[in-house]
Amino acid sequence: MFELGVVYRNITRADRAATDALASLGSATVHEAMGRVGLMKPYMRPIYPGVQVSGTAVTVLLHPGDNWMMHVAAEQIQPGDFVVAAITADCTDGYFGDLLATSFQARGARGLIIDAGCRDVKTLKEMNFPVWSKAISSKGTIKATIGSVNIPVVCAGMSVHPGDAIVADDDGVVVVPRLLVAKTLEAAQAREANEGAKRDKLAAGVLGLDMYNMREPLAKAGLKYID
Amino acid sequence: MFELGVVYRNITRADRAATDALASLGSATVHEAMGRVGLMKPYMRPIYPGVQVSGTAVTVLLHPGDNWMMHVAAEQIQPGDFVVAAITADCTDGYFGDLLATSFQARGARGLIIDAGCRDVKTLKEMNFPVWSKAISSKGTIKATIGSVNIPVVCAGMSVHPGDAIVADDDGVVVVPRLLVAKTLEAAQAREANEGAKRDKLAAGVLGLDMYNMREPLAKAGLKYID
Amino acid sequence: MFELGVVYRNITRADRAATDALASLGSATVHEAMGRVGLMKPYMRPIYPGVQVSGTAVTVLLHPGDNWMMHVAAEQIQPGDFVVAAITADCTDGYFGDLLATSFQARGARGLIIDAGCRDVKTLKEMNFPVWSKAISSKGTIKATIGSVNIPVVCAGMSVHPGDAIVADDDGVVVVPRLLVAKTLEAAQAREANEGAKRDKLAAGVLGLDMYNMREPLAKAGLKYID
Amino acid sequence: MFELGVVYRNITRADRAATDALASLGSATVHEAMGRVGLMKPYMRPIYPGVQVSGTAVTVLLHPGDNWMMHVAAEQIQPGDFVVAAITADCTDGYFGDLLATSFQARGARGLIIDAGCRDVKTLKEMNFPVWSKAISSKGTIKATIGSVNIPVVCAGMSVHPGDAIVADDDGVVVVPRLLVAKTLEAAQAREANEGAKRDKLAAGVLGLDMYNMREPLAKAGLKYID
Amino acid sequence: MFELGVVYRNITRADRAATDALASLGSATVHEAMGRVGLMKPYMRPIYPGVQVSGTAVTVLLHPGDNWMMHVAAEQIQPGDFVVAAITADCTDGYFGDLLATSFQARGARGLIIDAGCRDVKTLKEMNFPVWSKAISSKGTIKATIGSVNIPVVCAGMSVHPGDAIVADDDGVVVVPRLLVAKTLEAAQAREANEGAKRDKLAAGVLGLDMYNMREPLAKAGLKYID
Amino acid sequence: MFELGVVYRNITRADRAATDALASLGSATVHEAMGRVGLMKPYMRPIYPGVQVSGTAVTVLLHPGDNWMMHVAAEQIQPGDFVVAAITADCTDGYFGDLLATSFQARGARGLIIDAGCRDVKTLKEMNFPVWSKAISSKGTIKATIGSVNIPVVCAGMSVHPGDAIVADDDGVVVVPRLLVAKTLEAAQAREANEGAKRDKLAAGVLGLDMYNMREPLAKAGLKYID
Repeated sequence: MFELGVVYRNITRADRAATDALASLGSATVHEAMGRVGLMKPYMRPIYPGVQVSGTAVTVLLHPGDNWMMHVAAEQIQPGDFVVAAITADCTDGYFGDLLATSFQARGARGLIIDAGCRDVKTLKEMNFPVWSKAISSKGTIKATIGSVNIPVVCAGMSVHPGDAIVADDDGVVVVPRLLVAKTLEAAQAREANEGAKRDKLAAGVLGLDMYNMREPLAKAGLKYID
Repeated sequence: MFELGVVYRNITRADRAATDALASLGSATVHEAMGRVGLMKPYMRPIYPGVQVSGTAVTVLLHPGDNWMMHVAAEQIQPGDFVVAAITADCTDGYFGDLLATSFQARGARGLIIDAGCRDVKTLKEMNFPVWSKAISSKGTIKATIGSVNIPVVCAGMSVHPGDAIVADDDGVVVVPRLLVAKTLEAAQAREANEGAKRDKLAAGVLGLDMYNMREPLAKAGLKYID
Repeated sequence: MFELGVVYRNITRADRAATDALASLGSATVHEAMGRVGLMKPYMRPIYPGVQVSGTAVTVLLHPGDNWMMHVAAEQIQPGDFVVAAITADCTDGYFGDLLATSFQARGARGLIIDAGCRDVKTLKEMNFPVWSKAISSKGTIKATIGSVNIPVVCAGMSVHPGDAIVADDDGVVVVPRLLVAKTLEAAQAREANEGAKRDKLAAGVLGLDMYNMREPLAKAGLKYID
Repeated sequence: MFELGVVYRNITRADRAATDALASLGSATVHEAMGRVGLMKPYMRPIYPGVQVSGTAVTVLLHPGDNWMMHVAAEQIQPGDFVVAAITADCTDGYFGDLLATSFQARGARGLIIDAGCRDVKTLKEMNFPVWSKAISSKGTIKATIGSVNIPVVCAGMSVHPGDAIVADDDGVVVVPRLLVAKTLEAAQAREANEGAKRDKLAAGVLGLDMYNMREPLAKAGLKYID
Repeated sequence: MFELGVVYRNITRADRAATDALASLGSATVHEAMGRVGLMKPYMRPIYPGVQVSGTAVTVLLHPGDNWMMHVAAEQIQPGDFVVAAITADCTDGYFGDLLATSFQARGARGLIIDAGCRDVKTLKEMNFPVWSKAISSKGTIKATIGSVNIPVVCAGMSVHPGDAIVADDDGVVVVPRLLVAKTLEAAQAREANEGAKRDKLAAGVLGLDMYNMREPLAKAGLKYID
Repeated sequence: MFELGVVYRNITRADRAATDALASLGSATVHEAMGRVGLMKPYMRPIYPGVQVSGTAVTVLLHPGDNWMMHVAAEQIQPGDFVVAAITADCTDGYFGDLLATSFQARGARGLIIDAGCRDVKTLKEMNFPVWSKAISSKGTIKATIGSVNIPVVCAGMSVHPGDAIVADDDGVVVVPRLLVAKTLEAAQAREANEGAKRDKLAAGVLGLDMYNMREPLAKAGLKYID
């Protein structure tokens, strides 16, 4: 977070196939597969529901009320990227609207994660350009101070390095460090494979108490039933 | 809130027919019928809109970041119940997802009220399993510490006893104490009965000022008109 | 905000045609056209998405938990008005529901802006009566203390005078002072006229960096590219 | 929380000597002694630091912006009581100032816990009348609607019954149910008795890892040291 | 709030003697004397306790993260003024520190009210320069965009015109419109005159119930006593 | 943030002399010297005022409601260290009290930065053991789940690596990356050296407008004076 005024042009992106495969698993399963870490703060919400998507992070660090670096970031986008925008102080201004979305989409971006505000949300939905943000606000920004592109940033409480994988859906936004993507995918798929059989049992009325053999540890922990 | 590690198996539920009849009246009318009390904090929001439902409370007290007792609660659910989950300290973790929902639904639960986070919201919507929560979060929980089931709890600022009636819709969540359900239903129906005629008058352009005879008390209170 | 207990019956409204023309431009464009001012706090959210509307302000100042003056305000509504409700202290109570909406709609109101709570949101959506509010809450209010109608108020951080134009959509709520409506409309339309061509260029892959000639000022500001 | 308009004159208070003995143990030790429950939300803060006090609860339920029942509560105060004030909806108004404090103090009250705002804080400090509140605000209140005195209330997320013991200090506010006061005092004193020896050891440089024999369970849980 | 880039040099200040006399009455009494209006949001807190001061407002409107106009405001300060700083969007940056305080103090300012952050709070306390702010933050600001000085602003939810009287103490910040200062002073003094006798009675154990003759209206409102 | 269950025993600490020299400069000057970055969120507040201290970071990552790793961290403390505690999800529990403080102090720690709650604040003040925290809470924690010590963490929105320098005072908490400590110290001292002369000028009544030659750029930016 301490290099201001630099743009890294050559970043190493997480493996494309593995990153793409994370999308259908969703943020909750991926977060569990990493050991229950990697999740951004729950105040990050999609501007419209129903999207589940993954991509590789292009990071941008901006100043409060200033979106100049968004245009610098646009040039660094490659197809399959997810832009992750951090701000140097708390801000809810609307840094991003339909014009920037048009540019990002033309460059191949799959979405934006921004720890600030977004605007033109009706148009963004029509364009199918998903955004996860802290706020929705018409408040415009200026173009006066430079920040950086593709440096490590902290976005909504989570450390993000350029090239990391991002998984976002209605439940939140998870960051998977680049070098852990393959291993995480494997763990998440194993987790998912288990769930179908469990769901069938539970739907048939089997209790988790029995399916997970919890009765004995609960009794050991001191749980008492009173009639 | 002070008995930890106990599960009450036999609770007395509010009258089924009266509880069910509260649903169509909605949380606002029921809350008014009780004398403008019983409403949980407005930060409790449905994970998807359009549901209006009532049920009898099965309560569960959990610790921050620990959903073990959810499985214990599942066994105590009877058809027509509404699970009400309280936490011993503020927490936004995702205590509840599609597997637990499958189990709760199989037991006959109509929904969940939780003063914490929920996840798998897209799937829960597809399953028609409504949840009112403080947050949406992928953050998983552990199973390490026991709490209690069917003791009185405080959920989102409101005291809930096992067997109380719960009414939840897009406007919020109301708790009706078990012994007040019949009386509340009657008062709410009387209130509702009045509203049709009032609505017709207002739609025809009659002012509330005249319909409710407010002009005189307003003048007495000192209201002045200036042209 | 200091005249309590008065109702101004004759207010001068912003030009009707100009006010109406602001709707299709939207809150973000109008806010930019005014010099990036006029926006209410971003906690003001529509109770349902997809509406974009403008109107002339009828203002009302209420006390916490007391909606008596809403009925007084109803009488002052003329077709094309937008009711703007401010409270003398922070409050999330549900001041407004379907009965008042029926009355407001019958009088020709286009919507309500309220720095407090709203209820009956499902019905309001069915009625096509849009509300922007700070909260959704079933909590009812009393009718005990008088406030004022059509005095200047501060609503969600923004000063509003009776007769000002209001533009509200999914991005937020903007206030245009009555005497600035014509000038603002002109500036907003000029802004809008530019956007089509820009959008086409960006969609074709032209970068904002080039379209806006940003490369030189960025270099001057010290931006460095690292390969 | 559902009986409005009643004042219970005869309440059973927790044992005086045991209640008084809780003060010197403090809120953290008492809360631990109860099994880590009983604590109000941490937003409850003292209006000035350094006070550590206990007393028996006289409860009062008020409406937003209305402090009428404070005067009704004053009459029910006996020496050694602690007034606990709950509000039917979120409110930060200044319900309590130096005049009411003079009256409460004259009646023998040891302090006030209020889930709303307080004012005249400079004078209250000079009077040595401690208050724990959610906010500090000059905002005055009206006297229009009745509530109740000495019914069970929910204050800052915690259920309080009249006669319960309250322990408050710089760390927060704990509620001890009347029937658990003796048992809690005993447990808290046992806990406290242990602490002196522990403190001496830790001050001498002994590690908690060794004093509590944590090294083995940590290793079992999988903790790894890397040089 | 809509004139950007202007500095009004000649403003009419509230009467000096009346403004100064408001200080000893305090924010709560002055707010009551105005009819319970005029108070800024309770999140405005003094950076150190114990100060009670009044002055005439010099207003300044700044942009998020930009304190350039503070220096422009400094030139407009006259002895006895209170600087009131509003921001065009939510911001917690530290706009103000010991250097600006030195300048303001040299010009005769009595303090600063800022709807944003402040820093160097230890030094400001040593200098006896009081500040009421929304936050304390080391975060520095830039000097890039112009705002305005001595235009009407909205600060912490309250409308402030240049020359209005400001009263600030540990309970909060009240704005008295310039033309109401004399009348407000009179009403506040009358209020204050009453309080001594009341305080003596209450200290002697007389109840507010009797002193204010509340028993009858409470009974009429339906209050019931239960033994 | 992704290595769970590890303790790094050998970390490289920032230069001791340079780290120590940062204390007297304070968080605001150090933050400016780094280019206005490095500051934790302003919700981090000292539990008592007046302390200004620096030290080298020993980091610890904990789970919500679980302080087990604090004891593991204690063993890694060396004289001159500052413990920085991050939590994997939002939590206000009281992770730290007087016993742990005794242990940390015996090991030579200068203070604690924790993105959660702290308790025993009265005793900690008496011990002169400063803490900057998000909350104060009596709520106790358990010892059930392992985290990590001396891995990179995100604390209150800022990335912290073991061995980084921490500067904390009444204005907030700043993180200086280990390799930037010398350079930052130099820049901060240069900045400080300038301030004395500036302060004298401003105290003598010279305006910042003149001292910083702002009149011309303000006029260029369009600022207009109106008499």
